Amino acid sequence: MIYADHAATTKLSAKALDSMLPWLKDAYANPSQPYSFSRSAKKAIENARETIAACIHAGPDEIFMTSGGTESNNWAIKGAAFSCFAPGILITSAIEHHSVLRACEAMAKQSWQIIRLKPSKDGVILPESLTAHIGQNTRLVSIMMANNELGTIQPIQKYALVAHQHGALFHTDAVQAVGHIPINTDALQMDMLSASAHKFNGPKGTGFLYIRKGTRILPYADGGSQEAGYRAGTENVAGIVGMATALKENIENLENNQNYLQKLTTRLLEKIKDLPYHLNGRDQDLLPGVLNLSFPGNDGEALLHRLDLMGICVSTGSACDSKRTVISHVLKEIGLQEDIARGTIRISLGTENTEDDVDIIANALLKIVKKQTV
Amino acid sequence: MIYADHAATTKLSAKALDSMLPWLKDAYANPSQPYSFSRSAKKAIENARETIAACIHAGPDEIFMTSGGTESNNWAIKGAAFSCFAPGILITSAIEHHSVLRACEAMAKQSWQIIRLKPSKDGVILPESLTAHIGQNTRLVSIMMANNELGTIQPIQKYALVAHQHGALFHTDAVQAVGHIPINTDALQMDMLSASAHKFNGPKGTGFLYIRKGTRILPYADGGSQEAGYRAGTENVAGIVGMATALKENIENLENNQNYLQKLTTRLLEKIKDLPYHLNGRDQDLLPGVLNLSFPGNDGEALLHRLDLMGICVSTGSACDSKRTVISHVLKEIGLQEDIARGTIRISLGTENTEDDVDIIANALLKIVKKQTV
Repeated sequence: MIYADHAATTKLSAKALDSMLPWLKDAYANPSQPYSFSRSAKKAIENARETIAACIHAGPDEIFMTSGGTESNNWAIKGAAFSCFAPGILITSAIEHHSVLRACEAMAKQSWQIIRLKPSKDGVILPESLTAHIGQNTRLVSIMMANNELGTIQPIQKYALVAHQHGALFHTDAVQAVGHIPINTDALQMDMLSASAHKFNGPKGTGFLYIRKGTRILPYADGGSQEAGYRAGTENVAGIVGMATALKENIENLENNQNYLQKLTTRLLEKIKDLPYHLNGRDQDLLPGVLNLSFPGNDGEALLHRLDLMGICVSTGSACDSKRTVISHVLKEIGLQEDIARGTIRISLGTENTEDDVDIIANALLKIVKKQTV
Repeated sequence: MIYADHAATTKLSAKALDSMLPWLKDAYANPSQPYSFSRSAKKAIENARETIAACIHAGPDEIFMTSGGTESNNWAIKGAAFSCFAPGILITSAIEHHSVLRACEAMAKQSWQIIRLKPSKDGVILPESLTAHIGQNTRLVSIMMANNELGTIQPIQKYALVAHQHGALFHTDAVQAVGHIPINTDALQMDMLSASAHKFNGPKGTGFLYIRKGTRILPYADGGSQEAGYRAGTENVAGIVGMATALKENIENLENNQNYLQKLTTRLLEKIKDLPYHLNGRDQDLLPGVLNLSFPGNDGEALLHRLDLMGICVSTGSACDSKRTVISHVLKEIGLQEDIARGTIRISLGTENTEDDVDIIANALLKIVKKQTV
């Protein structure tokens, strides 16, 4: 099997799994208990917090463990909104992940006004668009760091600046970016950042929310005093340790990984250059390894299934809505014509992929894609 | 080490860990994707759902996976409350876990009126107390199945009946009970039930919420279409599979486990019969293996630490607030005198404990407890 859907999920790294096993076996103590058996579990969580913080240039007391990206996004949006005295305006983009879009819809039911900024045809939210829509009642701006379908990297530092000039908080869904591009929370001046471990070779069911010190937010899960009282619940010690191990491993190899993935994508595009394809977001900075390709006149779902029969895993829409719709909201929002949009697949390569894998994927595409001029 | 704090957390069963490993290694697909690599992960989740449902006599479509008991409790309370057209009255008890009490407080900030029923001195909420307080504006009653500190089993079937007679929903926090006593959601007529895997030898970071078919509730985490659209987020496949394996194992051995733990507790009480102790909740049905013992004139925290030095893990308050207070809210609510309450420890035995363990614990107590008449 050739797995080329790393934007949907990634394989747990062997090092991360090894780091998890002691906590799944004999070191099973509840970290909140005061006896010595609990001490190592508690320490392991704090070490993981420091590791994660160092990877994104944050303070350890700014990292809050969650059950994943969806929880982090829901918490950031609902927690920040509910901490306001009265409903206001919440600005997001039209190409966010559903966990952001639907958390915003939930706040709309609580009398919040939601503004969804439109992307350019290249899948980028222009900072001028934010400037044009922001006002004094804007309490929160939530725009993703990198789009999960297109791989387009967004100019979030500029959004943060605009948000702060208007007294609004800035949150970014960085689920697709963390572990794959350098992130400096301090330099980027963001208030909140969501991440999910299984997107960077960590375990499923764990993630974190970065919350800048002093940010006004309500806890999401109320209960015990875990996570400084902001996210109650007995800690998933193994998951947290595995997440930190995986992130550290990715960050230590970040430049090499980026270069390697760039080489693979260049090779892939070169091999399929005779196919009439459209690389969505092509003039933008893209996440390393992510290619959103439209083959006009083809059917993305059919391509996916034919590749599947050849042992190759790729994606059509985003992972979370592959059951619902063939043309994703992101492709609609960037204004792709329907016959082009329908023929879209997302190939997302990972460092486990080899040049041979890329050649096999390219050859498969050359075999199955119906040629029709763009 | 002798671990006698099974009400705080339990060791992951070897069988559960084995069942998790394939999903942490090669079968890492995102269950939401449409290619064949994802099929086994998707199937594993549905099998786990059926297994869990069968263990509590529910339908598979009534089981929703969460990140643990705290999330389940927060979801049940906030999700049911926010689904109402207007704020109403929410009845709970004064001896609930903090994840219920604080989720209720969060709803109080959203204009809900919260009524906390007082327990009897034995740690039981009398159904008459609910009858006396319930009214037509009561939208939800949330009372735990078994108290985490005392081990007292509550007459929840009666609460459910009273709640339904008044058109209110009934939720029970069964975190401490699931896997330890028989539960029949159908016979008990409950609308929602919370559970946490790590309390029944499953992994930390996973749990479930039972929601009776047709119950009006909002999703907790908005986003993708996982869990029938009610709990978004890429599934923690390994955690879910491990939870189901552990629960099935516990339920298959339920009667033997109960008898074995009863034998151990009887033995322990017999061995320490010359100590002046007070068994809290003694006239009530108690969870097998849970003993909440007050030694008047002693200091529970000091006992805990001396036992710790002897390699024995027990608890004073509940796991989640051991850092905060010496006398827990539960002991206060049952009206224990302060000098008795201060000398309280919770011993919670598990099936891994042996008769030798019990003898060692008893001998340790005989050595360190200061004798003073009750």
